[in-house]
Amino acid sequence: MVVKMFNIAILGFGIVGKGVYEVLKENGDRINAALGNNNKDASINIKYILDRLEFKGHPLADRVTQDYAMILADKTVSVVVETMGGASPAFEFSKAALEAKKSVVTSNKEVVDKHGDVLIEIAARNGVSYMYEASVGGGIPIIHPLQNCFLANKIIKIAGILNGTTNFILTKMSEEKMPLEEALSIAKAKGYAEANPHADIAGLDSARKICILAGIAFGRYLPFNRITVIEGISAVTAEDFEAADKLGYTIKLLAVAELVGNRAKLLVAPHLVKKGSLIAAVNDVYNAIVVTGSAVGEVVFYGQGAGSLPTASAVVTDVLEILKSHPKAISRAALEDGFLLPSNAFGDKTATLSNGSVYRLY
Amino acid sequence: MVVKMFNIAILGFGIVGKGVYEVLKENGDRINAALGNNNKDASINIKYILDRLEFKGHPLADRVTQDYAMILADKTVSVVVETMGGASPAFEFSKAALEAKKSVVTSNKEVVDKHGDVLIEIAARNGVSYMYEASVGGGIPIIHPLQNCFLANKIIKIAGILNGTTNFILTKMSEEKMPLEEALSIAKAKGYAEANPHADIAGLDSARKICILAGIAFGRYLPFNRITVIEGISAVTAEDFEAADKLGYTIKLLAVAELVGNRAKLLVAPHLVKKGSLIAAVNDVYNAIVVTGSAVGEVVFYGQGAGSLPTASAVVTDVLEILKSHPKAISRAALEDGFLLPSNAFGDKTATLSNGSVYRLY
Repeated sequence: MVVKMFNIAILGFGIVGKGVYEVLKENGDRINAALGNNNKDASINIKYILDRLEFKGHPLADRVTQDYAMILADKTVSVVVETMGGASPAFEFSKAALEAKKSVVTSNKEVVDKHGDVLIEIAARNGVSYMYEASVGGGIPIIHPLQNCFLANKIIKIAGILNGTTNFILTKMSEEKMPLEEALSIAKAKGYAEANPHADIAGLDSARKICILAGIAFGRYLPFNRITVIEGISAVTAEDFEAADKLGYTIKLLAVAELVGNRAKLLVAPHLVKKGSLIAAVNDVYNAIVVTGSAVGEVVFYGQGAGSLPTASAVVTDVLEILKSHPKAISRAALEDGFLLPSNAFGDKTATLSNGSVYRLY
Repeated sequence: MVVKMFNIAILGFGIVGKGVYEVLKENGDRINAALGNNNKDASINIKYILDRLEFKGHPLADRVTQDYAMILADKTVSVVVETMGGASPAFEFSKAALEAKKSVVTSNKEVVDKHGDVLIEIAARNGVSYMYEASVGGGIPIIHPLQNCFLANKIIKIAGILNGTTNFILTKMSEEKMPLEEALSIAKAKGYAEANPHADIAGLDSARKICILAGIAFGRYLPFNRITVIEGISAVTAEDFEAADKLGYTIKLLAVAELVGNRAKLLVAPHLVKKGSLIAAVNDVYNAIVVTGSAVGEVVFYGQGAGSLPTASAVVTDVLEILKSHPKAISRAALEDGFLLPSNAFGDKTATLSNGSVYRLY
């Protein structure tokens, strides 16, 4: 049996970087199967962690380094995971990795928004990949489907709730009729908002993300600082929600990229959304992205737009897509080995309606 | 410039088969770009249509044949699109194509449910692909993301509204308080239900689809005739909706595949669904699939679960994935060429609330 070990380096061991470590640890079997055509001994090894911190007592303490040149020079490292955040030095580090013929996987929306086109091109020139699924929508598969699943379509429009912090605040304001400041305090207390929440509240975070999506959909470099309408949520009041409610609406911060003829319309702003619609049902820190294709119509992707494990799930999926050879075989053994649970063992909760009908509860 | 022509054959020129022709015709530029690394002259040619019908005057009349052996023997045909429906002879034809080293793309859930594992294995042995994105959820990307975007997760549960016909009927019953028979008549009149709607109403169609998804998620062959709980919608009454409403619920036909320890729970049944939740907002002929992964949590995919163009979009995407080499470059030219529409040209509709606040309408 061929044992194959893939070495990676993680740049920045913060919330997402630590999540990558956790996801790799918890999903060893599945990841190894995805890597090695049933080679159970294939695996991913975190060889280096570039971070200023020391990790005394941490199981990975011996991998920590501040010497990026050493990582670049190590030919056994095939993938660099960039979870540093901030435009610099993340951009320079990513560029150097690609030029050293190492693929780069990132969760860093600032770098992708500012320099994505350049890094994609450098990657192609060096025969490696620059992957950024985790930069938009946290764990929601959106970058990969947008690149691969709409090839028979002209993508006409993308609209989405792309920022979990502001969606949590708007949900609180709507459901509990509280003012923005109070909802923001709760978001901070729960760790959903940063100490300085300006980039979220002002819509800048949503703007970066819609530009990344529009870049793929329209094949054009569209950095967020060229968007002319970026309205955040600071003007939204509790009274607005009451008044909107009377008309059958709620309020959501939407980022929109749309083709108008051969041109692109891009904006971030609070919108009225019809109650009962799918988008109105996207609450708390969840994100949703509506993609409209010429043949397929509207398709919606929904899930957790942030958080350590969901975002790390997207990062690790990108790493595997780079290293992969997926086994897609389906075993017939399940029919006879008791894998299929009999219905009397389901144990579902049910409810009886006033007319005596009994239903399962979802 | 290298001109590359890819020949395909379409087996069965019904609603989906005709949709494939339409999608190829309407999206020539995009499809060619996806095929040939910016080789604008690459293209897909429908060389044969296997169908009993004659198409006098149809632009593709000269491609129609009843001779499958001729298609199999033609080494210039690299992909066979199977849009026949029914288990036989679709299975035998697909098997023969794979053995002749032609990839097969299908929209046929019966064949995938019954023989998917065998066809995947034959494809692998012959170095070609068996692709079935269109067999579940029409145009919604779900097969591909399930295979490629959850690699860092253990998939714990899949639950979905997988049948558009019954969802349309339940929506009518809920919104217009009409009995099932009346809603079914409307569905037939609109072309959403077949003359014999048994497979939809009884939940068999949903059962086939959840088995296909469970096969990928759990890596096990699980044909629908082994599911012990398949309850359709025939027992759901208008009074049920009223009573459910009083408790804050609506009623949806859900197909569920869930891991319970190391075993699988599979069922199709009407469920109570909390009003205001995302699934409750899935109405009319739309489908939605909730995938729960160990790291990523709940992710939802939503869109049109049927229809000629949406389903054909999925078929053509599979064809392109087989033939592809995707250009993913993003052009920076947009910044200077007027591609970005100024905000004063957006022309958005707005509404003024009773308190004077003005919002964009979504």
